[in-house]
Amino acid sequence: MFQVIKTEGRARRGIFISDHGTVQTPVFMNVGTSAAIKGAVSTMDLYDLGCQIELSNTYHLHIRPGDDVIRDMGGIRKFFNWERPVLTDSGGFQVFSLAPLRKITEEGVKFASHIDGKRIFMGPEESMRIQSNLASTIAMAFDECVENPAEYSYAKASMERTQRWLLRCIAEMKRLNSLPDTINPHQMLFGINQGATYNDLRIEHMKQIAELDVDGCAVGGLAVGEPTEVMYDVLDHVLPFAPQDKPRYLMGVGTPENIIEGVYRGIDFFDCVMPSRNARHGFLFTWEGTVNLNNKKYERDGEPISKSCGCPTCKNYSKGYIRHLLKSKEMLGMRLAVMHNLYFYNELMSKIRDALDHGEYENFYRRYATSLSQRAE
Amino acid sequence: MFQVIKTEGRARRGIFISDHGTVQTPVFMNVGTSAAIKGAVSTMDLYDLGCQIELSNTYHLHIRPGDDVIRDMGGIRKFFNWERPVLTDSGGFQVFSLAPLRKITEEGVKFASHIDGKRIFMGPEESMRIQSNLASTIAMAFDECVENPAEYSYAKASMERTQRWLLRCIAEMKRLNSLPDTINPHQMLFGINQGATYNDLRIEHMKQIAELDVDGCAVGGLAVGEPTEVMYDVLDHVLPFAPQDKPRYLMGVGTPENIIEGVYRGIDFFDCVMPSRNARHGFLFTWEGTVNLNNKKYERDGEPISKSCGCPTCKNYSKGYIRHLLKSKEMLGMRLAVMHNLYFYNELMSKIRDALDHGEYENFYRRYATSLSQRAE
Repeated sequence: MFQVIKTEGRARRGIFISDHGTVQTPVFMNVGTSAAIKGAVSTMDLYDLGCQIELSNTYHLHIRPGDDVIRDMGGIRKFFNWERPVLTDSGGFQVFSLAPLRKITEEGVKFASHIDGKRIFMGPEESMRIQSNLASTIAMAFDECVENPAEYSYAKASMERTQRWLLRCIAEMKRLNSLPDTINPHQMLFGINQGATYNDLRIEHMKQIAELDVDGCAVGGLAVGEPTEVMYDVLDHVLPFAPQDKPRYLMGVGTPENIIEGVYRGIDFFDCVMPSRNARHGFLFTWEGTVNLNNKKYERDGEPISKSCGCPTCKNYSKGYIRHLLKSKEMLGMRLAVMHNLYFYNELMSKIRDALDHGEYENFYRRYATSLSQRAE
Repeated sequence: MFQVIKTEGRARRGIFISDHGTVQTPVFMNVGTSAAIKGAVSTMDLYDLGCQIELSNTYHLHIRPGDDVIRDMGGIRKFFNWERPVLTDSGGFQVFSLAPLRKITEEGVKFASHIDGKRIFMGPEESMRIQSNLASTIAMAFDECVENPAEYSYAKASMERTQRWLLRCIAEMKRLNSLPDTINPHQMLFGINQGATYNDLRIEHMKQIAELDVDGCAVGGLAVGEPTEVMYDVLDHVLPFAPQDKPRYLMGVGTPENIIEGVYRGIDFFDCVMPSRNARHGFLFTWEGTVNLNNKKYERDGEPISKSCGCPTCKNYSKGYIRHLLKSKEMLGMRLAVMHNLYFYNELMSKIRDALDHGEYENFYRRYATSLSQRAE
């Protein structure tokens, strides 16, 4: 269930309610690809960092350890010991970006595992069955994510197939949820809007999704090659056609600015590997601008990454120490850096929600929308 | 300062008191080579795991980030934010085991850095200066660690040189401790007994060390190629000649059984990379025997590594999940496994101390000395 409790312009402050707990939106979801955040961050750490909902990747878990294993272990939330909601992607994005030798038909996609080359078939029904085994809170529809720029004719045909796949996903999820031995009989399903950078396709598709019985609407196929301004333009055009009473999820986005801009346009859910990936390479977010720990000037710096930060890393360790760990390829360096960036993202979302609660998002937006990354070193 | 508060046979229950805190002995020191435990374990974790004293490697820290950097950061304890004692090794063992192109003279050792091949010279004075910069609680004397089996003539000449080096270490540490700008004016120095597997050399050297003004006696050059029984035989012969009122440290040892046997013979301090290295490869210690998580039978195992274990890993995660993480090369798997093994080692030492406190070490020894590893899969 989703309630918009306050709006400011197009921006929404909401509450998402599920059997697995409540999520205050706008929210950022960490990406725990193989049921773990890269950088040795555990679900116990995620509680400490204030994470509300976790994302995991269907494709990776299907290949290893196998969704049958996770089902036998009681579902993904029991598997990695996380009491809060989990969203699983459909596997589609990884099939199209990671797997070699793929072949798309109306039925689905044949591809080779990126681990051992084994031939695998995944279509809408397979994706739903895998996600039902994983027993996430929210399953994502199986779609094709087209890289930008895309030919109009291909984007149109792909969007139309994605829509036909969505109908099959809805039917299959309904069937799976009604099985007596399902782990999560209330598993939700979000549809995914496609259409590349063509606003007419995007709008046509969103109108179709809006008529269906889905629990949320995602905008997929953005941040995959197009300029940021094009992404914002698509959002400006398509979101007015998304249902007002369902959560909207901008997939795979993004920088702090992207998130601030997305919220401004009416997005509720975000996910991105950026905070953890950047951290592992020494790039840290702070409210004073980004810090690049690869810079030699931090070699003897005894201060935390940010003096105003309350994360476990900043409370205990210095830039000089973390820099040394990263340069020495000590895993602990990655862990400390990732913890900081995830905390920063959660704090960012918390500040966004506070601003919305107080009717001050316009101010917040003007202050931060273009400034956080531009202060980068 | 060191006090033996109870003995049982040759085994000793002691208290080591330093400016940086008190250590209950017998004690196991974790190895934090580059000022970090491999496996993304932080000093905050070490408090949780009940660690009393931490070991770091002079050779590694001299090369990266440089002991001058750590000195400028206020010493190693401030560098990695650890309030309890730290022992630094002398760098000798790493020079002799890691560095290529080394050349030994009376002055010291010329060698090439294993990182960039840069030519470096280290002798007793250099080792003391580096350790003074690191400002550890306990510095170790610079010695030559000879691999076993060794020729008698080489072992004798090397032991005699190590003894001459020890005299130079004592003089240099005295000088460094009296400098007005030293970080730790009470830095302690432990001598290291050598002599390979030749009991007459070992005894001759220990008698010489016993006459010197050192704060502790280490037994080095064991667990470097000789059978375990030979190591125990050396300890049986040499420890009666070690001072009763100073701590005794068996370097680089070892398995739980080795530690139980070492305590039985009068050792107070131990260190070893084994618990963390084994953990990273999926080998976990428990009181019910070792668990090899590489074994496929754990794939769907929802139980913790050990039901009787109180470590953060066993309280929250299952064998099946950790096995999946290790197989997926997720850092988190190594972290969870390392945390478990370090906790086990601290619990082992705690049980040893309890047994000594209650005059029951003989029973403990008979129960566990040969059983813990033999139950391995």
